[in-house]
Parts: sequence; structure tokens; C-alpha cells
Amino acid sequence: MMLIMAINAGSSSLKWQIYDMPSEKRIAKGMIDRLGKQDAIFKADYGDGEKFERQEPITSKEKAATLILTRLKSLHIVQRLEDIKGVGHRVVSGGEVFDKSTVITSDVLLQIKNLSELAPLHNNIEAYYVSVFAQLLPHSQQVAVFDTSFFSSLKPVNYLYPIDTKYYDQYGVRKYGAHGTSHRYVTQRTAEILQQPLEKTNLITLHLGNGASVSAIAHGKAIDTSMGFTPLAGLMMGTRSGDVDPSIIPYIMEKDHLQNISEMISILNKKSGLLGVSGVSNDKRDIDDAADNGDKRAQLAQEMFVNRIVKYVGSYLALLDELPDALVFTAGVGENDQPVRQAVCDQLQHLGVKIDAAKNQAKGQELLISTPDSAIKVFVVPTNEELMIARDTYDLAQK
Amino acid sequence: MMLIMAINAGSSSLKWQIYDMPSEKRIAKGMIDRLGKQDAIFKADYGDGEKFERQEPITSKEKAATLILTRLKSLHIVQRLEDIKGVGHRVVSGGEVFDKSTVITSDVLLQIKNLSELAPLHNNIEAYYVSVFAQLLPHSQQVAVFDTSFFSSLKPVNYLYPIDTKYYDQYGVRKYGAHGTSHRYVTQRTAEILQQPLEKTNLITLHLGNGASVSAIAHGKAIDTSMGFTPLAGLMMGTRSGDVDPSIIPYIMEKDHLQNISEMISILNKKSGLLGVSGVSNDKRDIDDAADNGDKRAQLAQEMFVNRIVKYVGSYLALLDELPDALVFTAGVGENDQPVRQAVCDQLQHLGVKIDAAKNQAKGQELLISTPDSAIKVFVVPTNEELMIARDTYDLAQK
Repeated sequence: MMLIMAINAGSSSLKWQIYDMPSEKRIAKGMIDRLGKQDAIFKADYGDGEKFERQEPITSKEKAATLILTRLKSLHIVQRLEDIKGVGHRVVSGGEVFDKSTVITSDVLLQIKNLSELAPLHNNIEAYYVSVFAQLLPHSQQVAVFDTSFFSSLKPVNYLYPIDTKYYDQYGVRKYGAHGTSHRYVTQRTAEILQQPLEKTNLITLHLGNGASVSAIAHGKAIDTSMGFTPLAGLMMGTRSGDVDPSIIPYIMEKDHLQNISEMISILNKKSGLLGVSGVSNDKRDIDDAADNGDKRAQLAQEMFVNRIVKYVGSYLALLDELPDALVFTAGVGENDQPVRQAVCDQLQHLGVKIDAAKNQAKGQELLISTPDSAIKVFVVPTNEELMIARDTYDLAQK
Repeated sequence: MMLIMAINAGSSSLKWQIYDMPSEKRIAKGMIDRLGKQDAIFKADYGDGEKFERQEPITSKEKAATLILTRLKSLHIVQRLEDIKGVGHRVVSGGEVFDKSTVITSDVLLQIKNLSELAPLHNNIEAYYVSVFAQLLPHSQQVAVFDTSFFSSLKPVNYLYPIDTKYYDQYGVRKYGAHGTSHRYVTQRTAEILQQPLEKTNLITLHLGNGASVSAIAHGKAIDTSMGFTPLAGLMMGTRSGDVDPSIIPYIMEKDHLQNISEMISILNKKSGLLGVSGVSNDKRDIDDAADNGDKRAQLAQEMFVNRIVKYVGSYLALLDELPDALVFTAGVGENDQPVRQAVCDQLQHLGVKIDAAKNQAKGQELLISTPDSAIKVFVVPTNEELMIARDTYDLAQK
């Protein structure tokens, strides 16, 4: 038996899944929420639909990791912790150093920490958990799966900004992208569904969740993506503005007497997007409810959200050398929000996209939703970043 | 005889043209360069290919205006200054106040000045010249032709940014666009060439000069444009970056120890774009020369310039409800740069754009350059903002 654990760590949450490999059977998943607090929540789903949930103080990252491993045994999810041969860690930024998933040596760990400047909220936390799990599971390989590495195939014409090249040469200012593991997963999965080789597969993949990004995929590889130097760029998101004229920053700062640009960037990251426009919520479902009740700002937020997706899809339709095989919707909104998919595809009808309104009723289900005569197929493909992490970890842990 | 003067004023230059209306015959044009300096240059083209040029001290805006009028008489361009019935002034920002060209009353002049916050380098200078010409030509109507008014047809979904709506409500933060007079001119002219009503004409217009913008035109009206709150946004330009992830601003500021965000915005406006990437020049012709000599950064700049145009055209192809009647290239680069037109259209071939390489050799000439089987026609239409200004001024001065 070879078990692989996939870890997705945030500042106040820790998500985990356990896979039996190579069968890819997920044997458990869970998360700790409000980590660091007295009223933290521990959740696990396992076995044959069994659930465990407890509110309890979990005051440190070590305690969180220890508790997960303790419960794996006490809930009889895992018989022997030694069976966990690999722990795959989602790492937000691999910068230009890591173009693929990598076994974590002490050198690699140092490099991940050194890249924290590119992901201040993430890399250090993730590196910390690497050390914790390496200590708690000494028989396991630690593997880093980078959110950025799928975009290492971008060419300079697409990853550079139209600014003095010294900012790239000296400071690494470029487009790194994000959500790479998700875009990679749905790309591979869609090639399988299409029963064609990955290297002949051209797609536009839409990861639409609270964060959102679009990627252009040519011959199975990413050629462009909407997120940029940071995840602020691109589409309108739950709380992030996406693309704006940078000139609005000094203008608003002056008007609002903001002294510090980091305050303004924080507003663009945390108080903009669907939340900022609607004034209601960052959650698309709340906005839909408000819009149904006649809230004009919520209706505007819906419309702007679709509008930005349409424009990015159009730009990638132009960037690709031929019409793509498919558009692929994934992540929370992409998998479940029929009106968004319908509105996006309707606006692309004159470019050969036609979906079947009945099939589009699907929620969270792998499905072809375009009509047979659509020039570009449209799929819903639920993402599975954890499986992708488990696969990479399994592959590397075996070597 | 009814003469109309079109004025395009900058901080250190003053361009003028005189039209005989309604025949639209241009009887003279000229400019003053290095205005304010001892070695300013006065140029005029008039009559039957006659030219006048003199280097001389022109130390103030009043002196510049006076000198133009004096020379109009001494060069026998105009017999009686009283025949100049209207002076049309290009005004960069009409904000949300002016949705069309307007006769300048004292109220209007005040409003133009009040809008200077949206165009700090322009509106005040332009307002100043309005007063000067009103005084020097007391028999003439002064008319304002706004660079923004063509974009008053944009809907909120396209002109708002995905940020808290209070920034729009309280401070007017939105997309205003620029180059409106040029986009409007080529839109009207292309409808004429196509011999179809303006209100049935759908286009993507590409104003590619040192500044550059793309507009989506539905039923003769602009529905979106690439420039934003300011002319910094959108395409890569001579010295402007166009769209970037706003997060690069604080990052570069910290790295370079810049205290002031206005310094950084100034870098994005003046030291970026073709200049920043190539390190050679903001002038596309210089970059082409350098690229031909093997300069890698110049080649990259060429490639990035085309790449951004392609992506914007794609986004507008998606945004329009049907394939547009035509793509229209205009302004310095758009009218004269065959390789850019060829590269943009080649990348759009799978979306139905096909140009005739021989016809595309045209420079600065009104011409259909697509092949008969191209699903979207492609035109070169030399822009004529001054004629547009003269027309509006003539129409309003007659009332």
C-alpha cells in the first residue's frame, strides 16, 4: 500500500487529502479552519461516507499537523503512518526556479523560502509545513507542487510587461500566473475526454472560483494566462479587481488621503471585484440572490463578471493559432454557475460557440455542454488540484 | 467664404489647420514647435505646395497665437481674419459632462478648466488658448471638440472598473478613453467607403501612433476602448506600458527606493512601452531599424507590440455581437507600418481575417487591404482629426 498526502496550507487553514496510489482512490479528505484560534474546526470525510467534525482549540501549525496525523490513526483511516510515502505540498510561487514539481531537499526548501517575496502570504507558511511534516513523517518524501510551474512554458512576448527590461532582469518582474495546478489538471483531463494526445490539444481553460483566471493552452502547454506578477491581475474576481488602469491608484490615494500604496493594493485585492461592485458579497451565489431581488449593483456585478471573461476568452481565441478544441469551465463558479456559462457562451456564438441549455444545467459534473454543431466544444470539468498533487508526489516519491 | 481653424495645442507645441467650409478644402496647416523657447520653430504649408519655415523666439502662448494670425495675413493665406468664423479646439477631457462637441461659452470654459484634474497636462492649456483666440478673433465662435466624447456611448459594464462603486460615484473613476476624434473620424469614413449607414456599421478601429488605442464600434457607436481612466491603459505604446498588473508598482517602488507613486506612474507613462522594452526609441521606425540589425530587445518590442494589439482585437471580436464589417488601421503606425498590419492580420487568420500582401504595401493611403474572401474586411484609413474638428466647428458655428 502506498499512500500519498496532499497538503494545501493557508494562513489560517490547512486542507489535506489522502490518496491510495496508483489507484488514485481518495481515502480521506479534511481541513482545519480558523487555525490558531480557540474555536478552530477540524473536519474529515473518510471511509464509506463517514464524517468527523469537532470544534477545538488548535493554536499552532505544529499542533494542526500533529492532530491530523493522530486522527488519521484514531479514525482508522490509516493503519500505519509509515504507509504515507509522500506528502505533496501546494506551493504558490516557484518563480522562475521551478518549472515542475520537485522533491524537497534542504536546498529546495531554502529556494522556496527565498521566493517568498513573490508570494508573501504563502511561501513561508508552506515551507514551514514542509519542515513539520518531514519531521512528523520521517519515512515520507516531501514534494513541492508549484502553482506557477504550468506557466513556465510562456514565452517572453507573453510573460514580460511593456516596461524597461531591467525590472525583469534585476527584480524578476514578469507574469508568473497562478492556479497552474488546476489549469494543468483540466487540460490533461480534457485531452483524455477528447481521446487525443495532450500535445495536440488546444484549449481555453477557465478557472472561475473566488479567485479566477483564464489560460490559453496550445499543444497541451500554457501560452498565456490572465493572472500576472501577482494574482491581482486579469479577470474580475470575488474580492480582486483584476485589470485596472494603474493611474487610478494615485488618483484614489490622493482623494482618500491614503499615505501608503500597500493600503491601495490591499483595497484592490480585498475590497474590489464582485464585492466592491455589488456591495453585497464576494460570493457569486449571494450576488445572484441579491440580483434576483432587484439589486442594481448586484446585477451590474454579474454583468461585469461575464464581460471580463468574454473579453479574455476573445483575446486568447485571437492569440491561439487555430480555433481551440474546447473551452473548459472549472472551479466553484465554473462548475456550478449555469447562468455565467450560458452568458459567456451566448456572447461567443458568432465565433462558433453554441451550448445546449439543457446540458448546461449540470452542476459539478464532468460534461460536454456544447451542441454537436458548435465549432468549439465546451466542457465542464471539475478541477482536482489535490489529485494532481498526489500524482506528482507519487511519481517523484517512487524514483 | 467661411473659414474654420482647427487648433491642437500641447504644452510646447501648437498645431493649426485652416479649412474652407463646407467644401472641406484645407487651405493651410502649420505648427509651432519648441514653443516657449528662443529657438522655437514656425512652420506652415499652404497654397499650391508652398512652405514657410523659420526658427525664432516664441516665448509665450499669446505670442504664438498672435504670430499665427499675423502670418496668415502676411503669407496671404487669409485675406481677412474676420472670415475665420470658427475656431475648433481639441480638448482632451470632456469627462462625463460633454458627450459631444460644444460651443464654448464662459460656463463651458469653466467646466473645461474644472475637468483639468482628469487631464492635468492638457485641459488648462487648451482652455487658455480658447481665451486667447476668442480675444484675437472676436468675430469667431470657439468650439470644443473633446477627445472623450465619442466614448460617451460606452455602457457602465464596459466603462466601470471592478472596484467599489463609490470611487465612481464620488470621484468619477471610470474609463473615459482617448483618441475619440480619430476613432470617430475613421468610423464615419469607413461607413462611407462601405456605402452603408453608420448605424449599421460594426468595426474595430485601431489608432496606432505614438499613443495607441483600439475601439469596438457597434452600430456606429463606440462600445469599448482600450484606453482607460487615463491614456496609460490598454495597448503597449511608444513610451507607455499599457496594461500591467498594478502590483508591480509597489514592488518596483520598494526595490528602487522610490518614495513617490507619481514617479512610478511617470515611468510607466514616459519610459516604458516600445522605449522601455527596446531601450532604443519610442519611434517604431527606429526600433525596426535596430531589429533589422539584430537587436534582440528591439525584436522583442516589435513582437510585444503586435501581441497586445492581437489580444485587444480578439477581446473586441468577442465583445461585439457579430463579426465586424472591418478592422480599420489608422494613425502613424497604423497607416504606414506594413509589417505590423501583416503580423496582426496573420495572427487573426483563423478568425476570418485575410489580407493581400501586395495591397498591404500601401502607406498613408485609404485602401482596402483584405482579400475578397476575407470574412472581415481590413482597411487603412488615414485619420483626420483636424477635419473632424473643422466639421464640428462649422456645424456649430452656423447655428
